[in-house]
Amino acid sequence: MGTQNKEYIYELEFKVRDYECDLQGIVNNAVYQNYLEHTRHEFLRSTGNDFAQLHLQGIDPVVIKSELEYKSPLRSGDVFVVKLLMRRLSFVKFQFIEDVYLKGNERPVLLGAITCAVTMGGRPVKIDVLPEALKNLMVSAE
Amino acid sequence: MGTQNKEYIYELEFKVRDYECDLQGIVNNAVYQNYLEHTRHEFLRSTGNDFAQLHLQGIDPVVIKSELEYKSPLRSGDVFVVKLLMRRLSFVKFQFIEDVYLKGNERPVLLGAITCAVTMGGRPVKIDVLPEALKNLMVSAE
Amino acid sequence: MGTQNKEYIYELEFKVRDYECDLQGIVNNAVYQNYLEHTRHEFLRSTGNDFAQLHLQGIDPVVIKSELEYKSPLRSGDVFVVKLLMRRLSFVKFQFIEDVYLKGNERPVLLGAITCAVTMGGRPVKIDVLPEALKNLMVSAE
Amino acid sequence: MGTQNKEYIYELEFKVRDYECDLQGIVNNAVYQNYLEHTRHEFLRSTGNDFAQLHLQGIDPVVIKSELEYKSPLRSGDVFVVKLLMRRLSFVKFQFIEDVYLKGNERPVLLGAITCAVTMGGRPVKIDVLPEALKNLMVSAE
Repeated sequence: MGTQNKEYIYELEFKVRDYECDLQGIVNNAVYQNYLEHTRHEFLRSTGNDFAQLHLQGIDPVVIKSELEYKSPLRSGDVFVVKLLMRRLSFVKFQFIEDVYLKGNERPVLLGAITCAVTMGGRPVKIDVLPEALKNLMVSAE
Repeated sequence: MGTQNKEYIYELEFKVRDYECDLQGIVNNAVYQNYLEHTRHEFLRSTGNDFAQLHLQGIDPVVIKSELEYKSPLRSGDVFVVKLLMRRLSFVKFQFIEDVYLKGNERPVLLGAITCAVTMGGRPVKIDVLPEALKNLMVSAE
Repeated sequence: MGTQNKEYIYELEFKVRDYECDLQGIVNNAVYQNYLEHTRHEFLRSTGNDFAQLHLQGIDPVVIKSELEYKSPLRSGDVFVVKLLMRRLSFVKFQFIEDVYLKGNERPVLLGAITCAVTMGGRPVKIDVLPEALKNLMVSAE
Repeated sequence: MGTQNKEYIYELEFKVRDYECDLQGIVNNAVYQNYLEHTRHEFLRSTGNDFAQLHLQGIDPVVIKSELEYKSPLRSGDVFVVKLLMRRLSFVKFQFIEDVYLKGNERPVLLGAITCAVTMGGRPVKIDVLPEALKNLMVSAE
């Protein structure tokens, strides 16, 4: 999960809020998942899809695995970006690669991989049911 | 909003979790609202009512005002209790008095007052629609 | 605590993040305190003061009371602004009035009043110890 | 990361709080990291070590990787346990295996692996610097 040759297709800028920092003066480990989730949802909106809309069609992407590598901490007031790409893993799984960088800096703060499956009516289905526009944005995982 | 002569009817014990503490090493101000909400919901459950159940009957209590007086901070590892009583304020409003104490200590950490109204289908109604068992637990606010 | 004739001196724009919404599909009551805190801290930074800096001088503003009136809920994806003004309440207390509005809308979502005192080395002191630039921004509470 | 033959050495019971649930009516993915963190800290306390104490000796365990496999969701009111064991991965890394189960149920809700390194004065050191009592609780990762 390095950062070489990753062709990100979306990015979202954030600023650390003090309530996200913990006793140690750094952003709490769990808060990064909030950042990554918000970035995914804003990305989906930017493609004209959102979870509410997919849900009305009976289609629910669900996170089945989160992997987060913490490289260096974010602190009070830091401005950072979450950069995202999507990978097709198999007929039934896709993945968001979501990496965090201090704004204007190439050294990663966090490397994230969020693996998703798709359910219809609570049962797992092939990711083929996702909108074409979304599937076209996925690269294959070599 | 003192603590004299308050006849609490419910209490719930908690322990501070480190992720609830902020840069200053104390529980973040917003987190107390989480404690108070959880206590109200557990109290409702203890009376045989829960929000999901009321909601199915079309009845939704909604918080219209929160007042929190911070008396002394909670810190990592502190064990504390939230004590609760209910007051009838008017035909359309009732209030949870919810005070926080370090366990075994009579000096309050926080004094809270959460004022609620009731809606049916999104429209305000008299609190008479609440279950009898719940209304009987309310004292009148003199 | 109406919104008439309030001369706000600072505002900050936000967008609701889905993880801030609860079972009822609306922003959880406690999350508004996060919004208000972040707005206060950004405001302080904008005046050239921040909490870390004040703390190094031994000066710690502390919240002693929060009052929040919930007028209408925020939902997934809503863009909103928190508008702020500061009032001098007494020799030892000042207050942030912080109101939330949907962007471009004049009907308030939430009316907030956050009362603060100032401590030096943990002991309450007069608010005179605050930086001149900050005190000059306070209006008197008539 | 199955659950077979895992000899857990610590467990902590929790109850889902409604504010931890999101729009979908289930505990938000990020919240599980809060549960796991609190369990680790309570475990450390139970062994007579806590982070504050270690920190005073200049020793800081830091999370460098989180891996969470979501098996089935937790919902409002669920009572669950987090079970923990510690593994020595190398001279410089150890890992908490932390799995979540509904109380009295053997089917896992979540499988977690939290990899840690140790720093002294911000620089990585061998995990040998950890207290003997803690190292003795680690099993080797075959």
